[in-house]
Amino acid sequence: MTDGTMRLGAFFYATGHHVAGWRHPSSEADGGIVLDRYVGWAKRAEAAKFDLIFLEDGTGIRDADLRSSERTARSTHFEPVTLLSALAAVTSRIGLVATTSTSFNEPYNVARRFASLDHLSGGRAGWNLVTSATDLEAANFGNDKISRHADRYERAEEFVDVVLGLWNTWDDDAVVIDKASGQFSKPDGFRPLDHRGKHFEVRGPLNIARTPQGQPVLVQAGSSGPGKDLAARTAEIVFTANQTLDEAVEFARDLKGRMPRFGRSPDDLKVMPGLFPVVGRSEAEARDKFEALQALIDPVVGLALLGRMVGHDLSGFDPDGPVPDLPATEGLKSRQQLMLDLARREGLSLRQLYLRIAGARGHSQIIGTPTQIVDEMEARFRAGGADGFNIMPPTLPGGLDDFIELVLPELRRRGLFRTEYEGTTLRSHLGSRPPAGYGPGQAARG
Amino acid sequence: MTDGTMRLGAFFYATGHHVAGWRHPSSEADGGIVLDRYVGWAKRAEAAKFDLIFLEDGTGIRDADLRSSERTARSTHFEPVTLLSALAAVTSRIGLVATTSTSFNEPYNVARRFASLDHLSGGRAGWNLVTSATDLEAANFGNDKISRHADRYERAEEFVDVVLGLWNTWDDDAVVIDKASGQFSKPDGFRPLDHRGKHFEVRGPLNIARTPQGQPVLVQAGSSGPGKDLAARTAEIVFTANQTLDEAVEFARDLKGRMPRFGRSPDDLKVMPGLFPVVGRSEAEARDKFEALQALIDPVVGLALLGRMVGHDLSGFDPDGPVPDLPATEGLKSRQQLMLDLARREGLSLRQLYLRIAGARGHSQIIGTPTQIVDEMEARFRAGGADGFNIMPPTLPGGLDDFIELVLPELRRRGLFRTEYEGTTLRSHLGSRPPAGYGPGQAARG
Repeated sequence: MTDGTMRLGAFFYATGHHVAGWRHPSSEADGGIVLDRYVGWAKRAEAAKFDLIFLEDGTGIRDADLRSSERTARSTHFEPVTLLSALAAVTSRIGLVATTSTSFNEPYNVARRFASLDHLSGGRAGWNLVTSATDLEAANFGNDKISRHADRYERAEEFVDVVLGLWNTWDDDAVVIDKASGQFSKPDGFRPLDHRGKHFEVRGPLNIARTPQGQPVLVQAGSSGPGKDLAARTAEIVFTANQTLDEAVEFARDLKGRMPRFGRSPDDLKVMPGLFPVVGRSEAEARDKFEALQALIDPVVGLALLGRMVGHDLSGFDPDGPVPDLPATEGLKSRQQLMLDLARREGLSLRQLYLRIAGARGHSQIIGTPTQIVDEMEARFRAGGADGFNIMPPTLPGGLDDFIELVLPELRRRGLFRTEYEGTTLRSHLGSRPPAGYGPGQAARG
Repeated sequence: MTDGTMRLGAFFYATGHHVAGWRHPSSEADGGIVLDRYVGWAKRAEAAKFDLIFLEDGTGIRDADLRSSERTARSTHFEPVTLLSALAAVTSRIGLVATTSTSFNEPYNVARRFASLDHLSGGRAGWNLVTSATDLEAANFGNDKISRHADRYERAEEFVDVVLGLWNTWDDDAVVIDKASGQFSKPDGFRPLDHRGKHFEVRGPLNIARTPQGQPVLVQAGSSGPGKDLAARTAEIVFTANQTLDEAVEFARDLKGRMPRFGRSPDDLKVMPGLFPVVGRSEAEARDKFEALQALIDPVVGLALLGRMVGHDLSGFDPDGPVPDLPATEGLKSRQQLMLDLARREGLSLRQLYLRIAGARGHSQIIGTPTQIVDEMEARFRAGGADGFNIMPPTLPGGLDDFIELVLPELRRRGLFRTEYEGTTLRSHLGSRPPAGYGPGQAARG
């Protein structure tokens, strides 16, 4: 927000964010397993000067009923860190943000992989830290039930400390490569971490040098209290879902208000809500595009999508009946409440609710002309409810092309988005600084 | 061996396999962290029609004394699966084999990453399965001491069953993408694994479709009894270290003799010993090249290298004294014994021993003309001691270029190596078949 321009992410969810997007005639529906599709989308996003590509992740198929998975494109997709590593080799400026869970990984391995991606990409890596929220994912790792929300965040807090600590085990300028003297890295240029905590004991040092960005950019999406504290302490981007302008402003105010406690400035964290844009040259054209997609939603898929969002199996329910009372789950606390509040506020049936979330999945959805879309973006930006947006194209590549060809020119006309990259690293695009104690020259001394 | 030609791997160990290789004036010594170096080496290896690129891995810096790490190029290097994912985007035919340990990973995550690499590369992925063998690695994962050898292999046996099982949770032709009917994958095209074993409970299915190769190629390096059994049951490549022709022939005979017990044919496993070639147009030129590298070895580095090989800290010993008596470790059983046998057989001092292993690290080392090198390769190949070799260039790119420009023409003149790729997948280069029960059409039915 500091320089008056927005940050924009290209959130690729093969093949498009609308749950029936893959069925659109123009969609490259094999994008989840064919690299060339992603290469094409990534090159378009980079040519358009997006700050970053954002990839979500889950550690398992998150449908209780596999019959519905067979009717969506999302049951098969690349593992995101490997995919972004491939894209690193064919792009040069755009940031590369992958989601990895702290629940079923070891911090040493995660620290290595993102450090490796940062080196591979010349300083463009970001890690979206999530905790895994479903029993279906836990069942792939020997756990019948997911951990309680509080325990997941306690583990995540320590996990991120270990990862940041490992990235800090090498000095900025440790690698000297002096062939004559035989000194590859400078004396005492890296050292053990010797972390001993409740969840992890990790000796270190990391077996990869300090990365081009010093450390990859941390991204988070939690909106609970512990989630906000973790983000205020460590994140440079927060990806969030807010339905209304007031909610968005209050969320950002609350989040950024927590930062000084952790020795950080609010400018060093960019709040980037998800935005699902359906763009038309006229409002009617945009509505027609959207309704054409809505008509492609299979009720089996709609109920399964909704079931995933609220953490309950809804496959037995009548789509035209009311939204049932659902007990709170340990999983998707914040998302679940958003859904139920929405249904009650507007008296929606299950079908009406799943139709409502089929695209944006709880994120902002704007259907209209470029002027209408940019008006809403600008209002949220100027009100302090967003430093930018994570753009969620309904279809790929069509929805991405619509945004680039129709919306970006209007954003640029108003001076709200860059025309050229200012730097070569993700952090240079963001204009942010890393968590306190972890910037350049902040390597841990033994 | 079936078609009378060898399989060749390009084993890249930045920056070159000789421990002082990075100090050579021609070495691209920043290869461990600069992608462009690897891109160059990979493209050269692909143009030369190597079967595969092979990358080893460790989950930590394996020097007890970090002072010696500062004087080698190996303390910092890319994580291999991310690196090969990047190389997948800029190559099209060469196989891509990365090492990943079963000791500090979850099988669901490993299955996903290699399946993702197989899709990214259009069917060129291979997984070199190892168990982690050092306490220094264990200390990065909350374990003070590495597990006992037998326990590591028990876990590895179950680990590989889970991974193979997960790769088998999708039918070959499950993805149909029928936009009209809304059926993305065919009914019952994927299903849970429901594995419940001693070490792992994994529900499945995998969240990525069956891969272009059906499943990535399994590679192993263990030479103990349990290691050989695991390889005979599951591997299509075994990477091995043998000093003499007789040892090599006996190793291959023993290993392949175990395969029928697991329903497999010996032709489906390629034994590829490591080979460290120092090539000269004359034998004197080759010797000079080698001695120039030997002269660059720092005693601190030499003793640390030897210490890693035998699993003991030797930093306090006199380099010119005898090799001390060392108790067997739970770590590198087979490699350790090779070293000690060699020292006793020839009465070597510590310095003489580290000079002996500085390049090949226990693998075959041939210093000579192309004719001399090919004579030895052919003898081992024809005697049944090797189906090919994993080439370990002393320096990069110089050692690779020497092999390509001087040795490959002689191999081709004798009809021992391909002039063009026959297929597009790693398995098509090898001409092997996957483990029994896991080939095309062998998906597990629920």
